[in-house]
Amino acid sequence: MTATTLRAVGELGMIRRIKDAVSGGPPSGVRTGIGDDTAVLALTPGASLLATTDLLIEDVHFRRSWASPYDIGWKTMAVNLSDIAAMGGVPRWALVALALPSSVDLTDVDALYRGLREAAAPHGVVVVGGDSSASPSGWMIDVTLLGEHTGAPKLRSAAKAGDAVAVTGTLGQSAAGLALLEAGKDSTHVDARTRNVLEGAHLRPTPRLAEGRWLGDQAGVHAMIDLSDGLTTDLGHVCRESGVGARVELEAMPVATATNEAARALGVDALEWATGGGEDYELLLTCQPDAAAVLSRELLAATGTILTVIGRIEAQGATVTYLDARGNPVAMRSGYQHFDG
Amino acid sequence: MTATTLRAVGELGMIRRIKDAVSGGPPSGVRTGIGDDTAVLALTPGASLLATTDLLIEDVHFRRSWASPYDIGWKTMAVNLSDIAAMGGVPRWALVALALPSSVDLTDVDALYRGLREAAAPHGVVVVGGDSSASPSGWMIDVTLLGEHTGAPKLRSAAKAGDAVAVTGTLGQSAAGLALLEAGKDSTHVDARTRNVLEGAHLRPTPRLAEGRWLGDQAGVHAMIDLSDGLTTDLGHVCRESGVGARVELEAMPVATATNEAARALGVDALEWATGGGEDYELLLTCQPDAAAVLSRELLAATGTILTVIGRIEAQGATVTYLDARGNPVAMRSGYQHFDG
Repeated sequence: MTATTLRAVGELGMIRRIKDAVSGGPPSGVRTGIGDDTAVLALTPGASLLATTDLLIEDVHFRRSWASPYDIGWKTMAVNLSDIAAMGGVPRWALVALALPSSVDLTDVDALYRGLREAAAPHGVVVVGGDSSASPSGWMIDVTLLGEHTGAPKLRSAAKAGDAVAVTGTLGQSAAGLALLEAGKDSTHVDARTRNVLEGAHLRPTPRLAEGRWLGDQAGVHAMIDLSDGLTTDLGHVCRESGVGARVELEAMPVATATNEAARALGVDALEWATGGGEDYELLLTCQPDAAAVLSRELLAATGTILTVIGRIEAQGATVTYLDARGNPVAMRSGYQHFDG
Repeated sequence: MTATTLRAVGELGMIRRIKDAVSGGPPSGVRTGIGDDTAVLALTPGASLLATTDLLIEDVHFRRSWASPYDIGWKTMAVNLSDIAAMGGVPRWALVALALPSSVDLTDVDALYRGLREAAAPHGVVVVGGDSSASPSGWMIDVTLLGEHTGAPKLRSAAKAGDAVAVTGTLGQSAAGLALLEAGKDSTHVDARTRNVLEGAHLRPTPRLAEGRWLGDQAGVHAMIDLSDGLTTDLGHVCRESGVGARVELEAMPVATATNEAARALGVDALEWATGGGEDYELLLTCQPDAAAVLSRELLAATGTILTVIGRIEAQGATVTYLDARGNPVAMRSGYQHFDG
């Protein structure tokens, strides 16, 4: 069996392949899809258009030795879906720009598109356009996701002093998964199931779309953001955009048993992963303090996802302060920033 | 004077810089711009949404030794604007995904955004979002452009047997400019003005937005496409999507004096550039044969741009046939395809 490369089928062959790969779902609102100068799309009348773009680059965002082509496709779509979730919006259409070395095997290209499609399809999202190019070095994939919102999106700038700060799900599992991938299978004593859960959380995160939409409809929810760069950085964005400060009680942080297990095996503080690790793609919100308990109970009933209050918005300060069980400030490492030396 | 690099200011510093750089124009239809999870945008009621994305990669689409950061920004925006022009649409908002080595000087980043902005601003387009990343190798920039159309966009699939085939402006100047850049200043006898015109056409193409919009309103115009990959490839797309063939008379091809001059100096057939060179970003259309003369006269009056009939759509065949002055078929080289070996 010989492998077929991109070089062998050329650009047109690749575009035909992509068109086939993405033409599964019902083309909701798609007047013209892949194959013309632009896509032509029909927004729901009266809705606002939401638009976001996220870029994943080999050896910056992923390593090919850990992440399969399927994983890379999945994750690029998922991180974009997460941005729409954080606005409380409905994702609809994606454009995919892809740069790959000409030597890449076509089965890898197919797997990448399968990952994109399987992350997108449950949410009714279809790929309606894109661009592809040879890459002189590694893999590069950029997804632009278009969505809509028929009400008022939840902004980062809407936090108010006195608000409770809450997060969906648990934090730190993506960083734990990354640490396990970096450590390798032989060097740590973590059982296979725990490893699979955590590595899966890192490689194929689940965007919180149903949660975002439900929370987006609640008047008691003020600001909302997804946790991509880590709690410190992302709650910091909320503070900066809202002109407030925040304090977070480390004791309240929701950390999964698997994450704590991996932390013990690797001799790491799980709270460092939970506060600075990033890529959990959980939602963080601020809400009226007396609404938090009801939101938590009803979100669980509506979506099966937990919501945990971890802190409070303060009028003073413009940044995040972590407090230990006795209320004393604790220094935690900060989140990820590109271009850092 | 010391240079300031991306590494020194970090990702947040870069985002602040971008926000400042793009906040010039009136934020038409922008409910929330850069700085939240997604942009929130207001389409004109009743309009269709147009969406396109184009990727430019160092050493694939441009060389840093020829193209300044300003040129790279300009061209990435211009090629996207050209796609909206080819639909007869109105461009509105852009998202910019950028990967740069951490060592890049901030003045280069500023120049790149100036190029993006100065290509976009005359058309009322504002940058509303994006993503930035460190790049392990070269420069990479992807622009997604969103626009709208309140009528019926002109598609590639609408060509009919008997239609005239016409193009705006002249063809081959971008390929001529590229050939001059490749040959270098000392190796060819071409005067400075000619060189500037042709190199400028390659590095900073002018998207035909006013022309696209005017032509898009004419019922006599059937199919439309922009010439990005070269006449052979792009007219081939129209043939394939419309299920027709095309013949092009080489004698009718509009080629500028400067292009012919460069062809003589380099010992090249200018028609090879005009048919296979690509990147002219002129518009190609098919129209009712009896409408061509009026369209040509009125487009010139409305926009100052010439429109030249170069051939005819045929019921037979699915590809482009070139004919010489005596009506005999001539083989011309084909357009550019990525991943070709």
